[in-house]
Amino acid sequence: MKRILIIGAGRSSSSLIKYLHQHTAEYSWELVVGDLDPETTSQRIGHAAKLIQFDILQEDESSQAIAQADLVISMLPAKFHILVAKLCLKHGKNLLTPSYVKNEMKVLEPEIKRQGLFFLNEMGLDPGIDHMSAMKEIDAIKAAGLELLGFESFTGGLVAPESDDNPWHYKLTWNPRNVVLAGQEGTVKFRQEGNYKYIPYNRVFRRTELIEIEGYGSFEGYANRDSLQYIDRYDLQGIPTIYRGTLRRPGFCRAWNVFVQLGMTDDSYQMEGLSTMTRRDFTNSFLYYHPSDSVETKLYHDQNIPQDSDIIGKLKWLGIFDHVPIGLNQGSPAQVLEHILKDKWKLSPDDKDMIVMWHKFTYRDKLAKRVIEKHLSLVVIGDDPVNTAMAKTVGLPLGIAAKLLLTGKLKQSGLFLPTIPQIYLPVLAELEQYGIGFRAQTSRSPQQ
Amino acid sequence: MKRILIIGAGRSSSSLIKYLHQHTAEYSWELVVGDLDPETTSQRIGHAAKLIQFDILQEDESSQAIAQADLVISMLPAKFHILVAKLCLKHGKNLLTPSYVKNEMKVLEPEIKRQGLFFLNEMGLDPGIDHMSAMKEIDAIKAAGLELLGFESFTGGLVAPESDDNPWHYKLTWNPRNVVLAGQEGTVKFRQEGNYKYIPYNRVFRRTELIEIEGYGSFEGYANRDSLQYIDRYDLQGIPTIYRGTLRRPGFCRAWNVFVQLGMTDDSYQMEGLSTMTRRDFTNSFLYYHPSDSVETKLYHDQNIPQDSDIIGKLKWLGIFDHVPIGLNQGSPAQVLEHILKDKWKLSPDDKDMIVMWHKFTYRDKLAKRVIEKHLSLVVIGDDPVNTAMAKTVGLPLGIAAKLLLTGKLKQSGLFLPTIPQIYLPVLAELEQYGIGFRAQTSRSPQQ
Repeated sequence: MKRILIIGAGRSSSSLIKYLHQHTAEYSWELVVGDLDPETTSQRIGHAAKLIQFDILQEDESSQAIAQADLVISMLPAKFHILVAKLCLKHGKNLLTPSYVKNEMKVLEPEIKRQGLFFLNEMGLDPGIDHMSAMKEIDAIKAAGLELLGFESFTGGLVAPESDDNPWHYKLTWNPRNVVLAGQEGTVKFRQEGNYKYIPYNRVFRRTELIEIEGYGSFEGYANRDSLQYIDRYDLQGIPTIYRGTLRRPGFCRAWNVFVQLGMTDDSYQMEGLSTMTRRDFTNSFLYYHPSDSVETKLYHDQNIPQDSDIIGKLKWLGIFDHVPIGLNQGSPAQVLEHILKDKWKLSPDDKDMIVMWHKFTYRDKLAKRVIEKHLSLVVIGDDPVNTAMAKTVGLPLGIAAKLLLTGKLKQSGLFLPTIPQIYLPVLAELEQYGIGFRAQTSRSPQQ
Repeated sequence: MKRILIIGAGRSSSSLIKYLHQHTAEYSWELVVGDLDPETTSQRIGHAAKLIQFDILQEDESSQAIAQADLVISMLPAKFHILVAKLCLKHGKNLLTPSYVKNEMKVLEPEIKRQGLFFLNEMGLDPGIDHMSAMKEIDAIKAAGLELLGFESFTGGLVAPESDDNPWHYKLTWNPRNVVLAGQEGTVKFRQEGNYKYIPYNRVFRRTELIEIEGYGSFEGYANRDSLQYIDRYDLQGIPTIYRGTLRRPGFCRAWNVFVQLGMTDDSYQMEGLSTMTRRDFTNSFLYYHPSDSVETKLYHDQNIPQDSDIIGKLKWLGIFDHVPIGLNQGSPAQVLEHILKDKWKLSPDDKDMIVMWHKFTYRDKLAKRVIEKHLSLVVIGDDPVNTAMAKTVGLPLGIAAKLLLTGKLKQSGLFLPTIPQIYLPVLAELEQYGIGFRAQTSRSPQQ
């Protein structure tokens, strides 16, 4: 009997719990879910796991719960993983998380190795499935002696076509705060045709790329933070082009850019006098003063939006010109905007979400004297409001990794990303059985 | 014999030292100047003061030097004033500085009062002369029973008309780093006609105002950080319009905005591969990739700059398209841009600088049923490369305040800004003798 402790039972944990529950009988696992609020969790996950009260900030109880586990999976907000990691080291337990490795975690590596433990991070969708699918292809290209010239990769959490019924073609399928703050994590850095390129926040949503995925139509991609760090992570020293981004439906970015330009996504200060303001007043605070012009006219003029632009319909639909009280007593512009979006971009109980991932590999076949462009695309639609595409693509990689580990298939020790074949090959293979598989499309240049 | 210790003998200290030196015989003062590098200082200030080696980070020696002084004037970079302030408190000495009061200084107020000491901050140009000239007018308006409707205030450190020989009509007359980072200190906040208004960094240099000063032509003003804090500082609760900004010559802001938009003023990261890059490569790193288009064409297209725009001449003149090595091995975009500007916007030994300050007061005379608009303008031209307009307008207010204090004219104790008549009246009066005086212009609306 092996005990798996899942810490944090938020929305993205449901598919993970479901997967592990389906295998408990076969492998004699005991599933324990620790959450701040076990009662609410109980309604969602039913009898799939034993529920315990767990607060990572209560060190004694946390320590005890981790001491009794054979494997720990942390689904807590990213900042808490380090606390879990330290308790895992204290009690000699393996750990899986879906979040980015930070430096505070990296410095634990020697101790993880010394104890012969296995810590796997970035094992969700993005980061996670992106690493695995990219590395499988990159390793194959290298093994075939081909020269990789470019790697581009985009992921988006969107609404499924059957539930797409608003002019933004977007709904909130994950943390709304992150949607509002997207692009503010630092200057975008990438390489293109051998040149380093930088994009500041105020340009990110205008420097987009159009992408077609057969059967699903068009998407637009905007660049993500620091793509250069993937040169080392994926062992791509000297690659002329590397670029990572996020997908939206075409037209989203240009309209979103209006909020960025006006300062409505600013999270650095608290607004004055919010309690008596309407949404229209909120919008007006970012526009110049005029004794008679309407807020609409000022915004269109300020942002140079023509009368026939689809941006106008998008902005009006969101209600930013409405004489409706904001309904917050305090907040930053970003918090007010989030509040408005939460209302309008809400996912209804019947709505389905959609995950889209798209990679482009460009490589040279020196023998055949050709440049080859290969696209890999993944589209996942949610099953229902609990087993969303987001929950499946974050939870299943973790679940499969847990199975591999507990059944002795992973013999390594240390701090890992899923960029090694011992992990990505079996996980990608099993994900395909759950409908999470990539489609490939290849085009060859004429002989050069 | 009273000993005045001036700490920090940078460029802006010269007029202060000169002023105090002119009064040493009359008042039996002893003037001591402490600097990290007394030898270099000696060449600049000659025998006007006794020079000592002073390093604020060497607490024992600093403490001793302050213990022997009767009055301390700190001209150090702003972050060091707090260390000086604590030593002044330790030894019961009065302190003057030209810098903004920070919270760390504010918390010392009860102890300053308890000891009966006098600490005066923000006693330079901006902050300094701006406070004094504004408060003199505001107090007069209030005393006359008039209702203040609006206060706007702009200051600029520019190049004198006789030395203005480049298309930007600008040269570096003060800290170049601050010029590059201007506008990045936080979101601009102000009130206009009763509405709170906010401007994010990427819009600051487009939301400008045109200002005419008789005899000196046109200027443009862009908004400065948080104007709202002046509501409390100047006791203007309920004022419908309050706005503070910085002056440049017309056309500067629109061209500077190109650097802001492209991300060339970003100071948050180090650029890759700088040592082998030209200025042209630097510019290109902020532009999209194109296999054949020139850097010039890409920039004009990206920034929507028409072929006949004066921005083109300004950019070319700065050399940002030149095939010239940058000459730095590392740096942020802001540091590279500063490096280029220092070369091009250099003040020659014969050049003179110019300080321009402009206030606009709008107030209602209820009895006469009129709205009155009053402008106050100050223009100061530098005497020579040492006694620049900047040095005079920063140094003379401090010097005059020192004289008032040492001759027993200021009886208060506590932490002060020069917003009280006991300070601003005598200081403004004496500044006029040095050619630092405001001109007034008033216009009345027709009877309403």
